[in-house]
Amino acid sequence: MKKSIGIDMDGVLADIESHLLTWYEQEYGLKLGADIFLGVKESEAFPDKEAVWKFVNTPGFFRTLPVMEGAVAAVKELAEDYEIYIVSAAMEFPLSLFEKREWLAEHFPFISWKNIIFCGDKSLIKTDYLIDDHCKNLDHCTGKPIMFTAGHNTNHTHHIRVNNWKEVLALMKAQKYSEAETQELA
Amino acid sequence: MKKSIGIDMDGVLADIESHLLTWYEQEYGLKLGADIFLGVKESEAFPDKEAVWKFVNTPGFFRTLPVMEGAVAAVKELAEDYEIYIVSAAMEFPLSLFEKREWLAEHFPFISWKNIIFCGDKSLIKTDYLIDDHCKNLDHCTGKPIMFTAGHNTNHTHHIRVNNWKEVLALMKAQKYSEAETQELA
Repeated sequence: MKKSIGIDMDGVLADIESHLLTWYEQEYGLKLGADIFLGVKESEAFPDKEAVWKFVNTPGFFRTLPVMEGAVAAVKELAEDYEIYIVSAAMEFPLSLFEKREWLAEHFPFISWKNIIFCGDKSLIKTDYLIDDHCKNLDHCTGKPIMFTAGHNTNHTHHIRVNNWKEVLALMKAQKYSEAETQELA
Repeated sequence: MKKSIGIDMDGVLADIESHLLTWYEQEYGLKLGADIFLGVKESEAFPDKEAVWKFVNTPGFFRTLPVMEGAVAAVKELAEDYEIYIVSAAMEFPLSLFEKREWLAEHFPFISWKNIIFCGDKSLIKTDYLIDDHCKNLDHCTGKPIMFTAGHNTNHTHHIRVNNWKEVLALMKAQKYSEAETQELA
């Protein structure tokens, strides 16, 4: 049986930082760089602290998120060796539910609806691995936590870190070999 | 720490049988009784086999479902002793996602968004108990399965069965006492 990987959406499959910067520039006429996110919550990174809350509650925001660089090809490759589940804490934003489902159907059509989970708290979802950008999800997951780099998590050092999808592939390939070795030894 | 109960929506919190009968009568002018559901899939219970598929894909269908008799009071009572999670296989019907979230906010406002899970396959959700009307969910759950009676599951006998919310309360009260006793003995 294949091992399972839970994969987060915002900040992992979807490039939320660049989307927020684009929307902020369009709305406020102020062009900012990704360095504003370093070490702070996304909502606190902008001069107007209400902006992010406003954006995530605007119809269309989640539907138009750009895909994280390399994510589609990497997830497709991982799906050969692992059972892939998309695990998104979408429940906080009711409007995002339909948009996220449509977004996945457009960009990741090879992921079945059976493998999508929208929840509030991720601690109940038992996958063998969880790739996420938030400690609140990784700290309490039942599987092996893998932290995907985002500005806001720069200062957290207690999880294995990957900086991009290339590094995810390299890590999971190494995991696969070490598991195969363990099985051989057993 | 409280034990957790996963609770299904359609056929458990929401009275889908009566809703289907109402919609069928409105659309086809044919009044049928709940006995049509006995031992068959809901979609196969009606003379027009396409009707259910059409209804569940019609905007408003999930938003207007009647609440199952006694469900609100019972879930409120259970929430005193158990951590309640709503676990719905909503992912198959993208339109239902927002409607189900709104429906829960209206009828079960005391359930936090953090405790709602919309998924495809429920086998990944680890609660201590799962109350559901479908074998496909109960057979592979990690916790104790509890089958909520529906026409379609009449002939299945391999799970503990409850016929209504009064029986759920009685069963869970008995579980609570037996757990307390076990802890005392330990």
